[in-house]
Amino acid sequence: MRTFPILLLTFMWLALTPSKPTRVVFFGDSITQAGVSPGGYITRIGDMLKKQNLANEYELIGAGIGGNKIYDLFLRMEDDVLAKQPTITFVYVGVNDVWHKRTYGTGTDPDKFVKFYDAVIKKLQGAGSKVILCTPAVIGEKTDYSNDQDGDLQQYSKLIRDLAAKHKLPLCDLRKAFLEYNLKNNPNNAEKGILTTDRVHLNDTGNQLVADEMYKLMVAAK
Amino acid sequence: MRTFPILLLTFMWLALTPSKPTRVVFFGDSITQAGVSPGGYITRIGDMLKKQNLANEYELIGAGIGGNKIYDLFLRMEDDVLAKQPTITFVYVGVNDVWHKRTYGTGTDPDKFVKFYDAVIKKLQGAGSKVILCTPAVIGEKTDYSNDQDGDLQQYSKLIRDLAAKHKLPLCDLRKAFLEYNLKNNPNNAEKGILTTDRVHLNDTGNQLVADEMYKLMVAAK
Amino acid sequence: MRTFPILLLTFMWLALTPSKPTRVVFFGDSITQAGVSPGGYITRIGDMLKKQNLANEYELIGAGIGGNKIYDLFLRMEDDVLAKQPTITFVYVGVNDVWHKRTYGTGTDPDKFVKFYDAVIKKLQGAGSKVILCTPAVIGEKTDYSNDQDGDLQQYSKLIRDLAAKHKLPLCDLRKAFLEYNLKNNPNNAEKGILTTDRVHLNDTGNQLVADEMYKLMVAAK
Amino acid sequence: MRTFPILLLTFMWLALTPSKPTRVVFFGDSITQAGVSPGGYITRIGDMLKKQNLANEYELIGAGIGGNKIYDLFLRMEDDVLAKQPTITFVYVGVNDVWHKRTYGTGTDPDKFVKFYDAVIKKLQGAGSKVILCTPAVIGEKTDYSNDQDGDLQQYSKLIRDLAAKHKLPLCDLRKAFLEYNLKNNPNNAEKGILTTDRVHLNDTGNQLVADEMYKLMVAAK
Repeated sequence: MRTFPILLLTFMWLALTPSKPTRVVFFGDSITQAGVSPGGYITRIGDMLKKQNLANEYELIGAGIGGNKIYDLFLRMEDDVLAKQPTITFVYVGVNDVWHKRTYGTGTDPDKFVKFYDAVIKKLQGAGSKVILCTPAVIGEKTDYSNDQDGDLQQYSKLIRDLAAKHKLPLCDLRKAFLEYNLKNNPNNAEKGILTTDRVHLNDTGNQLVADEMYKLMVAAK
Repeated sequence: MRTFPILLLTFMWLALTPSKPTRVVFFGDSITQAGVSPGGYITRIGDMLKKQNLANEYELIGAGIGGNKIYDLFLRMEDDVLAKQPTITFVYVGVNDVWHKRTYGTGTDPDKFVKFYDAVIKKLQGAGSKVILCTPAVIGEKTDYSNDQDGDLQQYSKLIRDLAAKHKLPLCDLRKAFLEYNLKNNPNNAEKGILTTDRVHLNDTGNQLVADEMYKLMVAAK
Repeated sequence: MRTFPILLLTFMWLALTPSKPTRVVFFGDSITQAGVSPGGYITRIGDMLKKQNLANEYELIGAGIGGNKIYDLFLRMEDDVLAKQPTITFVYVGVNDVWHKRTYGTGTDPDKFVKFYDAVIKKLQGAGSKVILCTPAVIGEKTDYSNDQDGDLQQYSKLIRDLAAKHKLPLCDLRKAFLEYNLKNNPNNAEKGILTTDRVHLNDTGNQLVADEMYKLMVAAK
Repeated sequence: MRTFPILLLTFMWLALTPSKPTRVVFFGDSITQAGVSPGGYITRIGDMLKKQNLANEYELIGAGIGGNKIYDLFLRMEDDVLAKQPTITFVYVGVNDVWHKRTYGTGTDPDKFVKFYDAVIKKLQGAGSKVILCTPAVIGEKTDYSNDQDGDLQQYSKLIRDLAAKHKLPLCDLRKAFLEYNLKNNPNNAEKGILTTDRVHLNDTGNQLVADEMYKLMVAAK
């Protein structure tokens, strides 16, 4: 039969052709901006992929800008995310939506946080990207809920968990992971130095914890 | 010739058919929400049109919701403005963008005020509406710039003036008009009671002043 | 002996003379201001004393003014407390020190909260009053620490607990009592309606809970 | 007569003995803390005294601590001012009372600003010091009242002017002086760089302007 060799060649070609890598965009604030630096969480995810011989299967793109709130993600998502045609997008935002209430008086109302976050999810999904939501980890690492903006962080994390449930999206619950880690490793109720350098931004341990949490979901979502 | 009577009838029909009225939407916050009440500024514009025998030529639609900031206008403009296919839209926002910095910690950053305002203008123009911008009048009527949020109101009013200039749009400079009125009529530097009942919301004189300022621009824009 | 009848008369006179009642001042904010109303927590303490036939042994004085922070207590303590020469003073403050951060931008820095609170304690003790400290109960009754100012309330309650320990003073830990009550009786994580009417001010159940907690310490302190 | 030579000696001794210098304390915040550095306003006042051969007649003492509000001055005045037994005290405070509303939510209520300022004045006068009040100069140098906290600075400056009038004290109206200077020398409405480095802290020109304004009042008050 003449068709057999052709089929065989086709199979061989398919096997040899490198498949297009899964493109993953990390969309967030200063924590994500620092994620692409040496030691940053995105760099660490890349290192983990190399160890698993999966480096060719993923393309990791950092899209973090310092000070960003959900409004900023909404405004720049066309250029910074959709234009890159991601397979998977991690949305990692919320710290500044809470923090700016105190520092500038320009935090985000809870109702508008949900509405604009919802719009971001829909646009990402409309462009064909899978979406993974992250809760904001900490502004202060004290474990007795006495960091001054813990109330709001609890509230906005809950809003994100509800959005994940509503849209049936994977949730990277960093706030939960950080609290559990601190309950075990922060016996003196320190406000920084366990997973952060300054109450917000990640030290090496914090970057690795975020990388570990995201890695599992990223591989599962592929 | 047979065409003559037909043309004549056509001309007659055109002359007799009532032209479609100019539809004007007032898009804003609680001040505009109160504008449709008896004595409100929109009601007063309607009264002024009746006196000029122009009531049939305009259809006035209030689209104000208390507490709204530029973000809210952006989120609800499809349903509340574009769906009404306005000929002219007054955008009258800014007080809460400033005020909420103090009362809730959720005011609007100046850069995002401009970006979302810009998006509102473009969507309105894209839908065929003429656009008239208004500056936020007052949070406190003292004339020596000692109302506690005067600095921000000055700044956001300037941002709106710059947007009007950039887009070559008519400007209803209520902040300027209110200050000029108070300089003449508020010798004791009172913080309310001249044009407002409570430092922000309009009394009869304030509603009439806004109506007068908007009326001129509305008729000119037709 | 001539001295015997005189001694006897003296003893009889002492037994018959009503002893001077224990004067208790409740020094605080709007919650305490409402405490003297019908159903208020001070009124309820009075009712409890009557039931125990102890009404003659105590004189209860409300000294609450709405909006008060520790600064205000410091400023008005001479007139409103020391002038009354109290035997026992309950200091019940902290809600506005936290709340005003959000509503007016004029909350109290933690370090200054401690310094002025310390000065209040020392002046009260210097004037011969026993002092009982109370933690601020709630701004929102949700039990998962997601009320937006829970972080600060936790922090300022801890500062008060530390002050009580430092000065070896009885502590009326209303924040702890309210949380325990809500954990049992607020299954839907409501933000108000369990012990408060509006997230802050006490309903009947809340007033009774405060009365119960204070009563125990008041009787013990006599 | 024997008394004549003794009197003569006494007069000679009085004439030759150096009189005790006028001790001037500058009591304030970070602006005053920087005032004792090379180029700082207190250093410059010292230089001006040297040029006038008056260096021996004055002793200048800086008592500025960064971040201080009126509450802080009140708390530390015993140790940092009264203990030095000043002849003249400049009180230069207000910037943080306003600024902290925005940055920490812990600014000072106007009514408490007045009450604690009043207490500071009375304690200084009670200890025998002359008192000179200064208005807070600027948070932003724009001249059209559009610096975001201009409203509050106007208000708190007015409170200080009223306190000076009430207590019949000399007023060093730095806010007025800075605005007048900027109106002449800041044609581009820059927010910094004319008299400040960063909208608040003084550059060389700003330090000299403050030194000039204070020098006049200091010499007059002696």
